[in-house]
Amino acid sequence: MPKIDGERVVADLKRLAEFGCYKSGVHRPTYSPVDVSSRHWLAEKLREAGLDPVIDGIGNVIGRNRSARGRRLLVGSHSETQPYGGWLDGSLGVIYGLELARAFAADPGCDGLGIDVAAWADEEGHYQSFLGSHSFTGMLTEEQIDNVRGRDDGTPLREALARAGIAGRPRARVEPGQYVGYLEAHIEQGDTLDTSGLRIGVVETIVGIWNYRIAVIGEQNHAGTTRMVRRKDAGVAMVRLATRIHDRFPEIAGPRTVWTIGRMVIEPNAPSVIPGHAEMQVQFRDADPERLALFEKALHELVADDERAGPCHVEIATIAHSEPRPMDPRFQAQIEAAAERHAPGMHMRLPSAAGHDAAVLSYRMPAAMMFIPSLGGISHHWSEDTKEDDIVLGAQVFADAAEHILRTA
Amino acid sequence: MPKIDGERVVADLKRLAEFGCYKSGVHRPTYSPVDVSSRHWLAEKLREAGLDPVIDGIGNVIGRNRSARGRRLLVGSHSETQPYGGWLDGSLGVIYGLELARAFAADPGCDGLGIDVAAWADEEGHYQSFLGSHSFTGMLTEEQIDNVRGRDDGTPLREALARAGIAGRPRARVEPGQYVGYLEAHIEQGDTLDTSGLRIGVVETIVGIWNYRIAVIGEQNHAGTTRMVRRKDAGVAMVRLATRIHDRFPEIAGPRTVWTIGRMVIEPNAPSVIPGHAEMQVQFRDADPERLALFEKALHELVADDERAGPCHVEIATIAHSEPRPMDPRFQAQIEAAAERHAPGMHMRLPSAAGHDAAVLSYRMPAAMMFIPSLGGISHHWSEDTKEDDIVLGAQVFADAAEHILRTA
Repeated sequence: MPKIDGERVVADLKRLAEFGCYKSGVHRPTYSPVDVSSRHWLAEKLREAGLDPVIDGIGNVIGRNRSARGRRLLVGSHSETQPYGGWLDGSLGVIYGLELARAFAADPGCDGLGIDVAAWADEEGHYQSFLGSHSFTGMLTEEQIDNVRGRDDGTPLREALARAGIAGRPRARVEPGQYVGYLEAHIEQGDTLDTSGLRIGVVETIVGIWNYRIAVIGEQNHAGTTRMVRRKDAGVAMVRLATRIHDRFPEIAGPRTVWTIGRMVIEPNAPSVIPGHAEMQVQFRDADPERLALFEKALHELVADDERAGPCHVEIATIAHSEPRPMDPRFQAQIEAAAERHAPGMHMRLPSAAGHDAAVLSYRMPAAMMFIPSLGGISHHWSEDTKEDDIVLGAQVFADAAEHILRTA
Repeated sequence: MPKIDGERVVADLKRLAEFGCYKSGVHRPTYSPVDVSSRHWLAEKLREAGLDPVIDGIGNVIGRNRSARGRRLLVGSHSETQPYGGWLDGSLGVIYGLELARAFAADPGCDGLGIDVAAWADEEGHYQSFLGSHSFTGMLTEEQIDNVRGRDDGTPLREALARAGIAGRPRARVEPGQYVGYLEAHIEQGDTLDTSGLRIGVVETIVGIWNYRIAVIGEQNHAGTTRMVRRKDAGVAMVRLATRIHDRFPEIAGPRTVWTIGRMVIEPNAPSVIPGHAEMQVQFRDADPERLALFEKALHELVADDERAGPCHVEIATIAHSEPRPMDPRFQAQIEAAAERHAPGMHMRLPSAAGHDAAVLSYRMPAAMMFIPSLGGISHHWSEDTKEDDIVLGAQVFADAAEHILRTA
């Protein structure tokens, strides 16, 4: 069995967290100078681990094992972070991949078993969610790249790639028959493991995420001189619609459905001006496609009601419809068996309520995910954390599962 | 009677609108390069009109008549604009002042009657509402100047004054006994005149404006992995509170009360992150102080209900409490009489639902305001406009009223 070096795993995670460190977390948006530096650092670490690394034309860092016999196992996650996010979200799976490559190389018993490592670009969607894994799996066209702009400041993606020094590089593509499958480790981000006192999660399904932009068009005007009866206040229309959404969704929710209005903007956003324009993004997630369709129907009905009632004009557009993705059952069984060997009775199966690159990869090869606990279920925040013991245990379970998956492929 | 030159008034308004022109409106924030240029242009026009101009240490442009006998009449308005605002809001009163100075100087019958002209800085509150008139009336301390920051980008006011080239200049102050009073012309900004087909408004009272900041503190977290029951979503709490405010206020409103939530922000404002912080500004206006107190009580009750109910923490802070200000009755009568001479039966008395520098000046001297119509009642938007005939008529009524006020002082 490949033996991982727990201290080395934690040290590398801490080193990676120095790129863009913010309080006890990290602010490392995709293609920012610290993100680019961190990808160069990662490529160098992959080279030291005996892999042949490349930073491709979309920013994916991929380290290939050139001496493996037969199909290899692709292991990784993303390496940018959420704004002022946590130090483990994404980074954990990348450093686990690096450690697996090192542990397999150091173990004579694993001779010929190949681990490739990937650090995908922009899973977090500073430009577009899953940009790197979409590129690798052939789901991203050059035309799409031409049109994508930065979420926060509208920078064209082409400009960001040029500034990152990777414009014009070839984009790495998955080759059929190259891989046994894809494995990704991640912090759970929820509190299921933490509150149950369990240490390893075997992901059954990655939920579908359906995302909408709702725009409200009213009439911008003076907040003193415009009588209430004459107003077309886009802000009022938006908060009333948001409230109705929050009232309606619980009536049709399943036990694990979640919904969020995470983005909300009014214009011109000045205290003495009636908002003429408002926009919000509504998102919901479930593992059941029928439940997702039910939510979509309810959302469209609420929007249509408001559009009919006036006085503002209300529009809805779909931003994303990711389907729920079941994980490979044989890989699940191997992760579960490895967890039982190292932490008997301390593991469980669960769905992933977060989207992950593994969902994208699952369209091209068998894919699976392993979770370790998040303290208090906190994630997408700089205070996100996990016990060091759980980080080390997770790496060993993951390495053990990877070996069994490669041997039984 | 001083005879105004209607073509010259319109030409000067159009010239002033070139500073920061945006579509058919103007974007001229206080202390921006175009605002500074426009103030220099105004000072030069005041000099040509025979006045002694100064741009003072807060950006007020003041032109003094050095040859008048006895107390003078101060006439003006502000010259910066709202973001992407209209070409007449503020500018109209400033150019009317300039034209009055010229018309009085050209009329031998007005010999010795003095018009001083003021273009106040930052009535619109890019840094702080009524900054210039507060400075002139002695209601702005150096310590306040030290602490004010730009509404949009947080630039310290001191830095903005330095960039504008006016840091360290003395601030002009009103001297007791210098003035008969203050007169300000303005577009109505509402639609009362426009929908009644009337051409001149005599302002009875400037409404009180009470303004609050409400902050909601929740818990930022992952929009997928955090179960609904565990969430402390500051965005949900804010939209629910805003909806309750919009439901409650109509129950206690008077016929002319208005309320607005013009500013609303959630953080981090990312589609897949549960908002941990939200903030909004709630404002209401009425001419009746008792009505304002009733609204304040209702707002505090709604906030206290939410604070008690949880799960988010809700805080409210008062930003501004401007009292309703009645306008000088003798000045009102003179404006009304002049309106009746030039446009018989085409005028009315009405309150001002917008705040104006005249409210500030009224603490130091008799003050009054005259309105001309706004097409469709549209203001604080680049499409704001007024018929040219109404602009010209307004200037003549205003000049006539000013002469009578000065003669009967």
